[in-house]
Amino acid sequence: MRITKAVITAASRSQRTLPLQTLVDRDGEQKSVLRIIVEEALRAGVEEICVVVCPGDEDALHQAAGEHAGALHFTPQEAALGYGHAVYCARDFIQSQPFLHMVGDHVYVSTSEHGCARQLVEAAEAHSCSVSGVQPTRETLLPLFGTVGGQRVRGADGLYAIERVVEKPTPTEAEQSLMVAGLRAGHYLCFFGMHVLTPAVMEILEEAVAQHDAARNGQAIQNGGGGIPHGGGIPLSPVLAALAERERYLALEVQGRRYPLDARYGLLQAQLALALSGREREEVLAGLCELLAQRELGKRDLNGRVSGAVLS
Amino acid sequence: MRITKAVITAASRSQRTLPLQTLVDRDGEQKSVLRIIVEEALRAGVEEICVVVCPGDEDALHQAAGEHAGALHFTPQEAALGYGHAVYCARDFIQSQPFLHMVGDHVYVSTSEHGCARQLVEAAEAHSCSVSGVQPTRETLLPLFGTVGGQRVRGADGLYAIERVVEKPTPTEAEQSLMVAGLRAGHYLCFFGMHVLTPAVMEILEEAVAQHDAARNGQAIQNGGGGIPHGGGIPLSPVLAALAERERYLALEVQGRRYPLDARYGLLQAQLALALSGREREEVLAGLCELLAQRELGKRDLNGRVSGAVLS
Repeated sequence: MRITKAVITAASRSQRTLPLQTLVDRDGEQKSVLRIIVEEALRAGVEEICVVVCPGDEDALHQAAGEHAGALHFTPQEAALGYGHAVYCARDFIQSQPFLHMVGDHVYVSTSEHGCARQLVEAAEAHSCSVSGVQPTRETLLPLFGTVGGQRVRGADGLYAIERVVEKPTPTEAEQSLMVAGLRAGHYLCFFGMHVLTPAVMEILEEAVAQHDAARNGQAIQNGGGGIPHGGGIPLSPVLAALAERERYLALEVQGRRYPLDARYGLLQAQLALALSGREREEVLAGLCELLAQRELGKRDLNGRVSGAVLS
Repeated sequence: MRITKAVITAASRSQRTLPLQTLVDRDGEQKSVLRIIVEEALRAGVEEICVVVCPGDEDALHQAAGEHAGALHFTPQEAALGYGHAVYCARDFIQSQPFLHMVGDHVYVSTSEHGCARQLVEAAEAHSCSVSGVQPTRETLLPLFGTVGGQRVRGADGLYAIERVVEKPTPTEAEQSLMVAGLRAGHYLCFFGMHVLTPAVMEILEEAVAQHDAARNGQAIQNGGGGIPHGGGIPLSPVLAALAERERYLALEVQGRRYPLDARYGLLQAQLALALSGREREEVLAGLCELLAQRELGKRDLNGRVSGAVLS
């Protein structure tokens, strides 16, 4: 099994501008978020990338990809039918090959010598099956993530055989079915926002889309043909839960951290994480100290006699 | 004199996406840079704003302005003829009224109870003349800014009568003609990126544009009609230098700091400055400490025995 294709989902209606945001990468270069994610995929050995977008965003994203635009295909998600459906939009691009999947609103910062995507691709190629990146995550953060349960794979560090997938479980659900031996107390394996998936996922998605359409049509008939869409669309986690029942499906504890950009101060956190793990760490730390000192002087400025001239 | 109009220049070809970047403002709300600047102008009493843009950027900027889009007029700068020319593009909007001018790639953080733009507008209305915001700036930073020379206005704190304006002076030029009594040694009054300007500026700009066109035509004739554009376009600083010769023209030391977003880590600096001076200062400081601690653990992770699970 070799991974040469990737699917990046960036079709969320509410976060259309996130992949266009600019960050300074670990190498000190200023890049769009999309470009940072694309480069992460390319470093993992991927050659072609499908970006699933909100219709109309193609041009802006094409521009944001910079020099890598040639490796990208853009596929619109015509209706906002959920995350699983967005992945399904890339089916013609994927055909029947395994693929790396990343989300367009995360930045990943590796703490190993290899990038996060590469760690995942290497595990998937070595074990010839789907592998989802996971990160041991505090119970209090469960409302944010898809969570997996399963067994540690003997002799393989940080690798688990996935038995269950639950989207945003309650603490009770998690305690009952998602505890994983060997993790720190109160911690669960939550998705990292990065997966290598086999074509079986597209088959399961096809069934889910057919079910969704049928339910919608049924509802439309019940409602006298009004065509009210079925609520919630097609999420990805139940599809991955079905995958775990059909095939060998692993989870890898990625050596690194994910930064969801849609969180409060998400861009700030991601920028600081990149800067502090990059080659300009010292410069950025110095800038931070200066800024903190300035603010303190600025405060004295309001009350006391320190003049503005002293601050510059 | 009352200021009800503002001109924001956002037509730079190289920084078209800066006003579209997202930052969390001091009030904790997530906003585009454009919206942060627009709100700064509105808080100063401005009612109508002209945004000078690169042709084609109107829609993206209109969207980025959010709820304030109704107060905005968009004027394209059809050719990249420089900063002064961008301001001149707003002449039909301004007609013969004084106006606040801000640049679309700075964020301003006040250290006084009033916003930076409001401090400037109040000074201009009180003295009925053009007033440029300035900040005492270290000699080493002169290559970045327009710089003014002049005399302190007696009895008015932080106010100067401008006699000279030089764009990015050398240290020698600055020492010879731009030293201002009462500033800290090695410091000069550099532009803050914010001005209140009288309609006289539009008249001077009209002359500069006419001269520029004449020079270009002359060159075209010399070059056998090839129409090579006159290099460098029309900058703003010489126009402000001419203004200082014609009218009373003041500089105000603004109580606050400007953050040019096109600088390296400019967005990061601006975001930290907003966050650390806003109501979520404590939360952001706590997040910073956590991130710094994580990185240190992350490093041990590479060499030592601290597992990934401990970090989360």
